[in-house]
Amino acid sequence: MATASTLLKSRVRRPSYLKKLAQAEDLIDLFPHNSYIGWSGFTGVGYPKKVPTALAAHVEKNGLQGQLKYNLFVGASSGSETENRWARNNMIERRAPHQVGKEIAKGINNGNIKFFDKHLSMFPVDLMYGFYTKHKENNRLDVAIVEASAITEDGGIIPGASVGASPEIIQMADKIIIEVNTASPSLEGLHDITMTDLPPRRKPYLIMSPEDKIGTPHIPVDPERVVAIVESDYADQTQPNAPEDETSRAIAANLIEFLKHEVQHGRLPENLLPIQSGIGNIANAVVGGLASGGANFKNLKVWTEVLQDSFLDLFDSGNLDFATATSIRFSPDGFERFYKQYEAYAPKLLLRSQQVSNSPEIIRRLGIIAMNTPIEVDIYAHANSTCVMGSRMLNGLGGSADFLRSGKYSIMHTPSTRPTKNDPHGISCIVPMCTHVDQTEHDLDMVVTEQGFADVRGMSPRERAREIIKKCAHPEYRPILQDYFDKAEFECLRKGWGHEPHLLWNAFDMHKHLNDHGTMKLPTWG
Amino acid sequence: MATASTLLKSRVRRPSYLKKLAQAEDLIDLFPHNSYIGWSGFTGVGYPKKVPTALAAHVEKNGLQGQLKYNLFVGASSGSETENRWARNNMIERRAPHQVGKEIAKGINNGNIKFFDKHLSMFPVDLMYGFYTKHKENNRLDVAIVEASAITEDGGIIPGASVGASPEIIQMADKIIIEVNTASPSLEGLHDITMTDLPPRRKPYLIMSPEDKIGTPHIPVDPERVVAIVESDYADQTQPNAPEDETSRAIAANLIEFLKHEVQHGRLPENLLPIQSGIGNIANAVVGGLASGGANFKNLKVWTEVLQDSFLDLFDSGNLDFATATSIRFSPDGFERFYKQYEAYAPKLLLRSQQVSNSPEIIRRLGIIAMNTPIEVDIYAHANSTCVMGSRMLNGLGGSADFLRSGKYSIMHTPSTRPTKNDPHGISCIVPMCTHVDQTEHDLDMVVTEQGFADVRGMSPRERAREIIKKCAHPEYRPILQDYFDKAEFECLRKGWGHEPHLLWNAFDMHKHLNDHGTMKLPTWG
Repeated sequence: MATASTLLKSRVRRPSYLKKLAQAEDLIDLFPHNSYIGWSGFTGVGYPKKVPTALAAHVEKNGLQGQLKYNLFVGASSGSETENRWARNNMIERRAPHQVGKEIAKGINNGNIKFFDKHLSMFPVDLMYGFYTKHKENNRLDVAIVEASAITEDGGIIPGASVGASPEIIQMADKIIIEVNTASPSLEGLHDITMTDLPPRRKPYLIMSPEDKIGTPHIPVDPERVVAIVESDYADQTQPNAPEDETSRAIAANLIEFLKHEVQHGRLPENLLPIQSGIGNIANAVVGGLASGGANFKNLKVWTEVLQDSFLDLFDSGNLDFATATSIRFSPDGFERFYKQYEAYAPKLLLRSQQVSNSPEIIRRLGIIAMNTPIEVDIYAHANSTCVMGSRMLNGLGGSADFLRSGKYSIMHTPSTRPTKNDPHGISCIVPMCTHVDQTEHDLDMVVTEQGFADVRGMSPRERAREIIKKCAHPEYRPILQDYFDKAEFECLRKGWGHEPHLLWNAFDMHKHLNDHGTMKLPTWG
Repeated sequence: MATASTLLKSRVRRPSYLKKLAQAEDLIDLFPHNSYIGWSGFTGVGYPKKVPTALAAHVEKNGLQGQLKYNLFVGASSGSETENRWARNNMIERRAPHQVGKEIAKGINNGNIKFFDKHLSMFPVDLMYGFYTKHKENNRLDVAIVEASAITEDGGIIPGASVGASPEIIQMADKIIIEVNTASPSLEGLHDITMTDLPPRRKPYLIMSPEDKIGTPHIPVDPERVVAIVESDYADQTQPNAPEDETSRAIAANLIEFLKHEVQHGRLPENLLPIQSGIGNIANAVVGGLASGGANFKNLKVWTEVLQDSFLDLFDSGNLDFATATSIRFSPDGFERFYKQYEAYAPKLLLRSQQVSNSPEIIRRLGIIAMNTPIEVDIYAHANSTCVMGSRMLNGLGGSADFLRSGKYSIMHTPSTRPTKNDPHGISCIVPMCTHVDQTEHDLDMVVTEQGFADVRGMSPRERAREIIKKCAHPEYRPILQDYFDKAEFECLRKGWGHEPHLLWNAFDMHKHLNDHGTMKLPTWG
């Protein structure tokens, strides 16, 4: 039996748990082939580290690749050293609802891993409904592995840097393993946790402002279901954030200009409405733009899914009053900065479950300004967030539709082009028809590129197409897209089906040209 | 000046309004060219009748077709004798968010009418945000024409058979014309009305069960903005409901079988959860199936957008405890039946605004069983609800995505085929790729046809495709679709982009074959 370090004892205030202290290597038997497993974790923070790596080592040592396979459910992405290693060892039979990492994407796209992506707000409820365990007799998960930064007297879990789907995974699991991370500080007081009741007993989320607290500071746990406590001794393995560049700064400038315009016309208060922002360099540039003097918005609030380093700048600028999310995914430097000034940041910060952070109910009520980056947008304002060429899965839907579908402003920002091997503008991110649709024309209000800003609110599809081509497409693609639209409009109006004109048999010709010639610069249509 | 009939006086309890009594013909000057106009009405009931027809007559008499054009906003569809006549007279410049009728569909698809469809729950809020009036200096509607079945002492409006977007249209309009319909009974007491606050002052909808009342029985109105009262002297012009047939009964039977299965497995209570059902013969057959003895579900509740005649049968069966919607669109016979037994039906019925009836917040909280009929569904469970051949607008999105996106169960039901001129099964409603996507793969849980039931919860796209082809496709199309999938899977797995396999350049070949040969029975792929 393992013995508890002084540090571990200081974090675990429930004495009975210490009797269940174990080494990860001793828990292998809890994971027979085909188990249904839930992990904590979201955007690569707050995920379990010891048990997953011990299982991977066990498979590697015994050559069990492909023989021990699991159905793995995590709120979003976990650490690359855990689930990528599992993917490399062919240990993942099924995975939902989101992932990040080369090996796991490879396994999904070569048919090894059965993956489905799902709205991040909806995944935990559907899990609770038993939809993902419907082939199991008891409709439940076998084991949950959840990272804690501390344990309360009641045996409740104080999460780490993310909450994600941990509350629901814990509710659904027969056995619970808690990894208490002593390598990072306890984040007690930073969380506001709500558990999930099912209909007809679900209640409203009584949140009227980002700082409203409606839950408990810990995840309540049934202590009898806790089968083991493991001490975890290293921090979340995050990467540096994607740096801004000229394009992302130009996109951010266009976007901030629009927000000013809306304030001027009385459609937004001077301190805006709560901001949501995704991950990536455009999101960074937007938040960076809000932090810099130029934007001049004061008393901002943030209601989002994940906070990147740039939000620390926004706090430091004095313009951000409060931020809430389901995870803080800082870079290693960002975490150092965060812990150093923890006393200053913590009172302005709250972490909630992904069911709350991404709740359409709350997002609509608060009138969130929602922003996201797609793979491609089409001339009628549909967007592809998931499948390249309609087929190859990138990371998954994430929370994009949770926010874009329910926010007051639904904004897609993207560079107008991306490079290929033989053309620096080989891919146009504005296309005639998206090869996969995750956000519909009924959900998007505006499209922004470094070229400009298309505000398509209240526009018919044909007006939208003209506006998006004119304002957002790259100059090298503008004539190609305009030609498609003109031909489609002529053909379809003539036939009396001109509401949303398409040349259906040619709609993917730009993609075909890319596939055949390494660039979307199609010489002629059809 | 018009004089008030005794009947009108008995309906209008606000004396000052009677001083504003007018004939519709006297109000033409309130409608200059390019006005922004809001009408009451939803699914062809509760719409204004006198002023719109007077305006149409004025245009016809003076040959003003195309010279008096309006921006027209109605909760959903209005009466065909009003907006179809407007469309025929080229009086509609812009229209949102939904419509029904040959003439208006023609105008949209020949380019005369700028139409956009929008989630019915979202339209009223976006209207309040000023998104649809952003080109007007004061960001408001010029005139609202709203039908009332009575007027309260405060000057508030008791709506007729629908609430729709009237609360928000009234909030947004500078001038209000009320048409008091004395040809139909007053429906006082049947409505629960909430007005819309904007963020940051929006509040939760504190509804925990379909019968919960959170509003007032009337729409509050600022009396100073009421510019005229018009007496309206004929009832809503509705049509008989689409009759059930063998196919729709088979679909309903498959669906009811599934609901029983879910009850057996403990995922649904014995009285189910609140049911939503669309319009059309499948919806009728489903509700009819619930009413008949076979289903044997008791104490049902309904939370839906619109009630058809079949719900009267369900009430009469004794199995329906309560129903709420934003409109009751009965057939002429249905209305007669409803009014005859009004005292029995009324206590079990409540009409709300479409923002409430279609609220994602409430739909998710209550765990609604959502059902709808699409144009086509694809093998990966995306659905097209709006645009035939990706281009030709039918009616619009309606509330389909409001319910399917947020319900506990998201069910698409459709016949597996539809006839063309030269083939009784010329169109397969299961296709390789939808030509327009309104519901994404992330939103649908199951697909039902008369062939069978595909439960795709928790499935990866490739599992979904196999299941939908096997269970739902018509036998004549099963090999064609399976061949597409097999080829696509082989090609895409080989290239390492096999998450959702497509033959992108051939994805619409069945549609092309339909266009060229009048049937989707494609002899071979690519």
